[in-house]
Amino acid sequence: MSPDASERRSPEEVVDEYERRLESVLAEVDEPVPDDEGPTLELAGLELDRRDFMKTGIAAGAMGAVAGCSSLSPGGGSGGGQSGSSESGVDHKVAPGEHDEYYGFWSGGHSGELRVVGIPSMRELTRIPVFNTDCASGYGYDDETRAMLEEGGGYTWGDNHHPNLSETDGDYDGEYLFVNDKANGRIARVNLKYFETDAILDVPNMQAIHGCSVLSPDTKYVLGNGEFRAPVPNDGTAANDPDAYESLFVAVDPETMETKWQVSVDGNLDIVDTGKEGRWAIASCYNSEEATDIQGMTRDDRDYLKAFDIPAIEKAVKNGRYDREVNGVPIVDGTQSSRLNKGDRPVVQYIPTPKSPHCVEVGPDGKYAFVAGKLSPTVTMLDLEKLGSVSDPADAVVGRPKVGLGPLHTTFDGNGHAYTSLFIDSQVAKWDIAAAVEADEGSEDPVIEKLDVHYNPGHIQALEAMTTDPDGEWLVVLNKLSKDRFLPVGPIMPDNDQLIHIGQGEKEMELVADHPAYPEPHDCVFAHKDKISPKKVYDRADYADEKPYIEEKDSGVERTGESSVHVKASTKRSEYGLPEFTVKEGDEVRLTMTNIEGVQDIIHGVAIPEHDVNLAVAPQDTREVTFTADDPGVYWIYCTYFCSALHLEMRSRMIVEPSE
Amino acid sequence: MSPDASERRSPEEVVDEYERRLESVLAEVDEPVPDDEGPTLELAGLELDRRDFMKTGIAAGAMGAVAGCSSLSPGGGSGGGQSGSSESGVDHKVAPGEHDEYYGFWSGGHSGELRVVGIPSMRELTRIPVFNTDCASGYGYDDETRAMLEEGGGYTWGDNHHPNLSETDGDYDGEYLFVNDKANGRIARVNLKYFETDAILDVPNMQAIHGCSVLSPDTKYVLGNGEFRAPVPNDGTAANDPDAYESLFVAVDPETMETKWQVSVDGNLDIVDTGKEGRWAIASCYNSEEATDIQGMTRDDRDYLKAFDIPAIEKAVKNGRYDREVNGVPIVDGTQSSRLNKGDRPVVQYIPTPKSPHCVEVGPDGKYAFVAGKLSPTVTMLDLEKLGSVSDPADAVVGRPKVGLGPLHTTFDGNGHAYTSLFIDSQVAKWDIAAAVEADEGSEDPVIEKLDVHYNPGHIQALEAMTTDPDGEWLVVLNKLSKDRFLPVGPIMPDNDQLIHIGQGEKEMELVADHPAYPEPHDCVFAHKDKISPKKVYDRADYADEKPYIEEKDSGVERTGESSVHVKASTKRSEYGLPEFTVKEGDEVRLTMTNIEGVQDIIHGVAIPEHDVNLAVAPQDTREVTFTADDPGVYWIYCTYFCSALHLEMRSRMIVEPSE
Repeated sequence: MSPDASERRSPEEVVDEYERRLESVLAEVDEPVPDDEGPTLELAGLELDRRDFMKTGIAAGAMGAVAGCSSLSPGGGSGGGQSGSSESGVDHKVAPGEHDEYYGFWSGGHSGELRVVGIPSMRELTRIPVFNTDCASGYGYDDETRAMLEEGGGYTWGDNHHPNLSETDGDYDGEYLFVNDKANGRIARVNLKYFETDAILDVPNMQAIHGCSVLSPDTKYVLGNGEFRAPVPNDGTAANDPDAYESLFVAVDPETMETKWQVSVDGNLDIVDTGKEGRWAIASCYNSEEATDIQGMTRDDRDYLKAFDIPAIEKAVKNGRYDREVNGVPIVDGTQSSRLNKGDRPVVQYIPTPKSPHCVEVGPDGKYAFVAGKLSPTVTMLDLEKLGSVSDPADAVVGRPKVGLGPLHTTFDGNGHAYTSLFIDSQVAKWDIAAAVEADEGSEDPVIEKLDVHYNPGHIQALEAMTTDPDGEWLVVLNKLSKDRFLPVGPIMPDNDQLIHIGQGEKEMELVADHPAYPEPHDCVFAHKDKISPKKVYDRADYADEKPYIEEKDSGVERTGESSVHVKASTKRSEYGLPEFTVKEGDEVRLTMTNIEGVQDIIHGVAIPEHDVNLAVAPQDTREVTFTADDPGVYWIYCTYFCSALHLEMRSRMIVEPSE
Repeated sequence: MSPDASERRSPEEVVDEYERRLESVLAEVDEPVPDDEGPTLELAGLELDRRDFMKTGIAAGAMGAVAGCSSLSPGGGSGGGQSGSSESGVDHKVAPGEHDEYYGFWSGGHSGELRVVGIPSMRELTRIPVFNTDCASGYGYDDETRAMLEEGGGYTWGDNHHPNLSETDGDYDGEYLFVNDKANGRIARVNLKYFETDAILDVPNMQAIHGCSVLSPDTKYVLGNGEFRAPVPNDGTAANDPDAYESLFVAVDPETMETKWQVSVDGNLDIVDTGKEGRWAIASCYNSEEATDIQGMTRDDRDYLKAFDIPAIEKAVKNGRYDREVNGVPIVDGTQSSRLNKGDRPVVQYIPTPKSPHCVEVGPDGKYAFVAGKLSPTVTMLDLEKLGSVSDPADAVVGRPKVGLGPLHTTFDGNGHAYTSLFIDSQVAKWDIAAAVEADEGSEDPVIEKLDVHYNPGHIQALEAMTTDPDGEWLVVLNKLSKDRFLPVGPIMPDNDQLIHIGQGEKEMELVADHPAYPEPHDCVFAHKDKISPKKVYDRADYADEKPYIEEKDSGVERTGESSVHVKASTKRSEYGLPEFTVKEGDEVRLTMTNIEGVQDIIHGVAIPEHDVNLAVAPQDTREVTFTADDPGVYWIYCTYFCSALHLEMRSRMIVEPSE
């Protein structure tokens, strides 16, 4: 099967072709399109032709893409293997025993987990398994989490992208974190009292959820962008008919974790963020062509933002003005050709942008949504106040500065500056928001400064930039490639999360630290330490009726059926409540363990060799696992946490007697 | 099931009892045992009575255990929540873009993985999944790794404790790392060219392997300590007869990963290290009582080191002087009552120590093995040169300094100092090796300095301390508890890996940094960066005949049976070799993907929504996965690595047609 080496194209040839192809895509963006060839756009009842579209500055914004194209190889613009900064004058050290000031919650991409990182030290404080299983914490090993994963679709992995903290009155309330699974169209909730995933919703009718946001200011909904177009329902009947595919946008109730409604739209939805006032959710969109391959997806030179008018959608749902109910979910038609969009109040506004935009981030004052151009070197600024009043939503575009090649995401210092990551240039551009509104479309004038990063940055987040009151001291940029920045660790290299000092926007950006990240964080969100108050020991009042509590004296074995037993035991430092117990070959064993200690940080593990059993029981917590005792023999149950000086001697003994 | 709260013992009462219990155990160690009550010990044909045993200093060594017992609560001796160090004068910063000087390989405990940490920055560079599955790297998701895990016992988790680097001529050769699984009695090998696990051996006849070491100086064997006593074979026939249980010691061939031989011994084997000369493997041992509960395991006041004489064992195996062959493995009898021990050359020497010793570390010059007392406040120094010549192996004990409460592990700076972790005192004791030999047994005089650590340290490792030439600049201590050292993250807190500057042993120890660690590292090993040379792109010469190579032009679908298809595709930036393919409902799909790029750090993922399919394909690598297409519909295959500006548009489309 392996072809002769001489027939193969060399890896270098493959890359050359990639670079030619990307240049060609960018060049196309730059080419003026004759008026008579421009597609027309039906938008809120208006005919918008190519000339009207141009007035929003798309062509000007795209200008210059080629001018900067000489360094198209990834990271090529940023100094190769050189250090991006000499010895830094700013220190991010947190002395031994002192605490970080901010929690950072990192999505873990296709690792399926979240990571909690302290800022400014950049130390990973813990991991929170979400869509993956995790033997360190026993997540997916006890009956409760196993059932939750099963109900959440039964997959063993997911691809989490966009973590969101719950809000009350527009500020983080420390209750929940919500995150999407791109791979299987799911949304999970993490309980921030315990730093544990407590719900996973496999959203009906949606294959992939990419963008994910909570509706400010009070977390009324968790919102999700359906990225992959597919038939609804996707049962095979229209699998060969791409015209019948749809993209959906979904609203999920954060408390019940039920799907409230969905909206069907054109094209592929990408990223979403909401305004601060509870009305608008702005989603970026690509593949307005509704093609099925990359050539088709990048054919036209424009795409559309979608502005979801949440109260209008709620009203439509309430009044029964939705087209269908599929798998119990009302689906409102938000396509350009829909009745609702031709009626008195469209539920979705379509705003033209250069092709294939990527991020949407709403600034701290809630005035603008910033949409990075990806294939255009510009950021489109959408005025959310205007959006509700202009008759042509394209008129709500009030700025489109040129920031550099491959702009993907934007963040804020709260002092009037925006910072945009430039994927292709491998840079961060700092620019002046007010100046961008006043400047000509496509102007570079608002840009204040650029800093090399290493390499190919994606998301960029300044401290609490997604709130109304950013901290403005530090910024983190999540670089997709690290290449030569760390000691080599084989072909799969870490990403590089870089810490940049921005000093309230009053100083020059300074690269302070490189931090390797296991693949593949996509985004992060920060909360000041005073806004998060986790419990250090399980509070039984939080689940009094849900979990049993096994005292030492309750420890014992109860036969519950011909081939089933219930084993109950307490655990504390150096002793399980049962030093030994006997079951029969083939028994289904339900094992219930309570950690009866009340001291923080004293966890007890429950490992059974050769049975794939593995629990972690925190103080005052109870965990259960059900397994089959298939093989006769003696098995030593032991504690996986080094809990005391007598930890090694801490043991219980399971004897599995041969069946007759 | 939840008892009335008033019936329960409070968590505080539970802890009080623990502390009383531990005090009582330590007090017992200190009590002089009347001569006529002392157990006799048959050792190498000699009768060693209690008085002879005393001469090695056990009682003196145990003295003082109670004197220091006033701060028995974990971490109580070390300043509670206060910072252990004021702003440090020594910096461990590695500037952006600069490399660490050392690789650290951390065992991940029951997370099942290894972690690679840069020193001195303490940044986690990557993870290496070993006994766990890992969706980030696709480990356990492609057919090859799935089959390896299946052949390695089929478990989804493991508990890795002791990482060991392969050696040639006594120095690290950068080829392999070996690590044990305590939970299921396994040994895994990691290929350091690719930082990937390439073999897992489920060792026959052994339930738990705790200690693990390679035989210096040329990695002739990987050695493993069987910790849990069980019948051999463990088939249920003697499950209720603890007298019939055995502990085994195993030697595994590092190249073929086959079990060469095992030795049956008394008691529970704990930690093992080898001399530098290829002869001795020294293992610590507890539960010489061969009891089945903690009361019995800690009853007597002595235990025994076991010194495995490797050439003697090899000779016994070669000459057929082994008792049995079980599951294809020759088992040599190394118990105290065995014929071989009464013959001319014992295969195992038994050396008495205070009860329940823990670590064994052989010093850089290979002269002494250092055995920490755990329940005794002493470190036993065993002279490996003497061991081969003295008629009473107890006479090879040449030092037993008193270092503090709960000594667990010892490390070295290469300049004559030892550093012992004190679990109960939460300290590191630095002491003078030569002075300890000259001092009276149980003397504190050799101790130079103690430093508080936070909290309850286990393994401690200075840079390359396990080689003949330690670096001596830094030391890492792996603390089991972090309690208040980091921002709180719920009931399951991180461990705390602390970086301590030791300055070649010429300076006072200085605590420089706290680093949180996801549960639960047990040990680490360091190699200078020049000794590890990973490949950055797959080298097809390394597996030319094992893996196919799919060119773009080879991409296609081949029906291989009534219900099976083989889908082959290349992958490169922004395009899969197949933009779409069609299979039938119920088909078994074998999907083979080659990343045809040759550029480092450009990984492509292969994710199929709702099919639990997830591959990571590094440059020039090929991965395969076989799955069933159960549900009709359209499924968008996408890349999980953000590989280019056109990453989002990179897609293949699987159409599953409904069966007739």
